[in-house]
Amino acid sequence: MIIKKDSKVAVVGDGSWASAIVKILLNNVDQLNWYIRLKEDLDYIKNRHHNPRYLQSVEYDTTKLNLYNTIGETVADADIIVFVIPSAYAAIATEKCSKDTFKDKFIVSAVKGIIPEIHQTTCDYFHHEFKVPMEQLGVVSGPCHAEEVALERLSYLTLSALESENADYLANLFSTKFIKTKSSDDIFGTEYAAILKNIMAVASGIAHGLGYGDNFQSVLISNAIREMKRFVDEVHPITRDIKNSAYLGDLLVTAYSQFSRNRTFGNMIGKGYSVNSAQLEMNMVAEGYYAVKGIYEINKKYNVDMPITDTVYRILYEKISAVMEFRLLSDILD
Amino acid sequence: MIIKKDSKVAVVGDGSWASAIVKILLNNVDQLNWYIRLKEDLDYIKNRHHNPRYLQSVEYDTTKLNLYNTIGETVADADIIVFVIPSAYAAIATEKCSKDTFKDKFIVSAVKGIIPEIHQTTCDYFHHEFKVPMEQLGVVSGPCHAEEVALERLSYLTLSALESENADYLANLFSTKFIKTKSSDDIFGTEYAAILKNIMAVASGIAHGLGYGDNFQSVLISNAIREMKRFVDEVHPITRDIKNSAYLGDLLVTAYSQFSRNRTFGNMIGKGYSVNSAQLEMNMVAEGYYAVKGIYEINKKYNVDMPITDTVYRILYEKISAVMEFRLLSDILD
Repeated sequence: MIIKKDSKVAVVGDGSWASAIVKILLNNVDQLNWYIRLKEDLDYIKNRHHNPRYLQSVEYDTTKLNLYNTIGETVADADIIVFVIPSAYAAIATEKCSKDTFKDKFIVSAVKGIIPEIHQTTCDYFHHEFKVPMEQLGVVSGPCHAEEVALERLSYLTLSALESENADYLANLFSTKFIKTKSSDDIFGTEYAAILKNIMAVASGIAHGLGYGDNFQSVLISNAIREMKRFVDEVHPITRDIKNSAYLGDLLVTAYSQFSRNRTFGNMIGKGYSVNSAQLEMNMVAEGYYAVKGIYEINKKYNVDMPITDTVYRILYEKISAVMEFRLLSDILD
Repeated sequence: MIIKKDSKVAVVGDGSWASAIVKILLNNVDQLNWYIRLKEDLDYIKNRHHNPRYLQSVEYDTTKLNLYNTIGETVADADIIVFVIPSAYAAIATEKCSKDTFKDKFIVSAVKGIIPEIHQTTCDYFHHEFKVPMEQLGVVSGPCHAEEVALERLSYLTLSALESENADYLANLFSTKFIKTKSSDDIFGTEYAAILKNIMAVASGIAHGLGYGDNFQSVLISNAIREMKRFVDEVHPITRDIKNSAYLGDLLVTAYSQFSRNRTFGNMIGKGYSVNSAQLEMNMVAEGYYAVKGIYEINKKYNVDMPITDTVYRILYEKISAVMEFRLLSDILD
């Protein structure tokens, strides 16, 4: 399926990245459907032109927005669905959707993570649960903090789809004066890289919490990108340059940012918080927490050498001492 | 030449990285020669066991130190010379040395930069000016802030020499409980990478000074490592993984550190300081300032596509507006 000119677009999700994507897309479309989970938030946006919870500084032109609070209504007349619901809630959010809800739609995955229990990426989930053909799946990849999009700070996105015409269409759709875009055919690699980088950011946070310094961090990240390359090259062996922005850039912006939820979560673990108390304290869930479990399970099939992922897994799920685990890891890094 | 067991080591240089290297080496040698430029500093170290200017917290076991204030005396009875004088002063510092001063010595370059006017790396300089054979040249590469060595924070070094036995010898010489080392045969690639990363750190600083955010930085750095790879692969085409710590790690620790002189210098340029006033204000010289001129000149021979290096060169040496240059660069990055 080749995306038709002037396809109608819907955004499903109302967190910070969804709010940033809506801001981006409103530069390029006349009408945009937007799924807002809570009726009170929907009314707030309609009346006050701001999302009450995320990127509050962004003002929306509501004459261009069609707001809904069911996914079914949001996607009904749309051709391209940008799906931005965190993986931990993706299955719950879509459980009321019928098998036909996403029929003949082009799905763009924008929030990266592994769906818990079933251990699937967002693309895999739509492909298996809703029978969306691979050719109708796309991925939008960072490096991109939503907060900087709100400030219109120059950022770069990579849009991936198997058909180059579709990737180019999406690249145009997301291109604005403050967003430069490129297209790629690597939906598998970009989606997995975006998931893996969250694990690496948790590792980076743990290291920081344990008192390791900048010298160690740079070695950790240079090992991390090699670990990511080993995994994605095994899972989907095509020619790719892992040093491109969609892979390495995305890792850097996440692992080196003080604002990264995954890094903050890791930092608390490194400082001795339990997983539960870290999550309570943060009042949010770090994607990397689910990602590491999912990748660990998926890697049982592939058996890729993943010392950093294994280390984070053992610390978070087997409650092995972070001090001990990082001492062992530091002997493996080079 | 294969380095003999229990070779005598001399350190030439008394800045922060030299002071860190002396701290490292004192774990592994019984006696160490150390060149201290000023007599008053030499006396201070002898009497008080601390370098008065750099890494003041480090206490030295002076019973193991032989302090000299001429290079000739320092290296006379030594077999391995660790050379740690910033490239801007390397030629001046060694001008009194005779052609025989470094005869039959193994030279390890520890400060990376391009020697001004003659546009040579430290290894090239010793090879051409003092006829030191390539087989007697080595390189010690980060990622390694001296300040973290002072704190004994776990760090990793790569020791390069053409002969693997020599690289292994050096790797052992620098290995301590807080320094993990590996050996490599890539003296050309590691030395050039260490030089190039300073240019990239200046670029990173300029971007920050101009107000670009974290999203842009991560794209800049992911382009930077690709630019570094293009250059070193052209200058010395061997199989190397540019994602290793000696290349990518070194870039990361420099470009992402608030303490990097090169990044600080770039930041001031981005904020509108002239080159002269930035140097006056910092009261020191950023290696990247000379490096970009040297690499620019050297690249006239190789003609590698180096948009970031060219951008920094034009801003620093042709006084072209950083705002304009980065606007143009941002269209090239991807």
